[in-house]
Amino acid sequence: MADNPSPFAQRGSTEEVEEGRAFAPKFDADGLVTCVATDARSGDVLMVAHMNAQALRKTIETGEAWYFSRSRHALWRKGETSGHVQRVVEMRIDCDQDAVWIKVEQEGAGACHTGRRSCFYRAVPLGKAGAVTLEFRDGEKVFDPKDVYKA
Amino acid sequence: MADNPSPFAQRGSTEEVEEGRAFAPKFDADGLVTCVATDARSGDVLMVAHMNAQALRKTIETGEAWYFSRSRHALWRKGETSGHVQRVVEMRIDCDQDAVWIKVEQEGAGACHTGRRSCFYRAVPLGKAGAVTLEFRDGEKVFDPKDVYKA
Repeated sequence: MADNPSPFAQRGSTEEVEEGRAFAPKFDADGLVTCVATDARSGDVLMVAHMNAQALRKTIETGEAWYFSRSRHALWRKGETSGHVQRVVEMRIDCDQDAVWIKVEQEGAGACHTGRRSCFYRAVPLGKAGAVTLEFRDGEKVFDPKDVYKA
Repeated sequence: MADNPSPFAQRGSTEEVEEGRAFAPKFDADGLVTCVATDARSGDVLMVAHMNAQALRKTIETGEAWYFSRSRHALWRKGETSGHVQRVVEMRIDCDQDAVWIKVEQEGAGACHTGRRSCFYRAVPLGKAGAVTLEFRDGEKVFDPKDVYKA
């Protein structure tokens, strides 16, 4: 991979970044862009994670989702432990090129390390002030994390 | 609003944060959580933005999307200039409670300040190494930003 030219262009003017065809992602102070992964079939948001330049590059080259774990400070191929690989059907970049949206086919039962299909298994009730109690939605576990992440 | 008790709980153990009903969002060093807004009908990702505690609280209380603009360092009611308000149909929080997903009904033609329906109007081609040229998808402008954001 080191022999290939970089997939990234220099950041140009706002007009160039927003209206051009040059791929010039804006990595934040920690070298990351935000990535939203949605289920290619249902459209549901599966997870929100981060990619550094290497993760973004490997995702583009392999068509499988790679992330950068902020807690483990490590490049992370989604599914490397669980087998729950994400095949990327389409990748989009947003107007100012600091967020990536990937539509994925999720291999295995779920994307969330807690055993759910999606990380977003709780709803926040709306329309009132004061204390909030979360409501579980689509919260059933589709796999047992203890089986999947065993040492 | 200042008279109402906080909607946020103290962060507990990992088990409590992931499996509990207490709403304990994890704001980053800048006091922000990431928010993904999807179209409640199509499921498409419209935008990725950020909320500080006040924006999150106002979104919950009003059922309309409020964000925090990192570039302008200001609380920002979506649509306050353009009229393109987002009515929140459902709000979800992720496993570790540092990302919010809102399903919205987008008032007006589009969510993106460039005049598109979604901010994600360009695709990144996959499966090859080297230089990337973005491809426009759903890139037609549905409103003229000059009309909407005129002084």
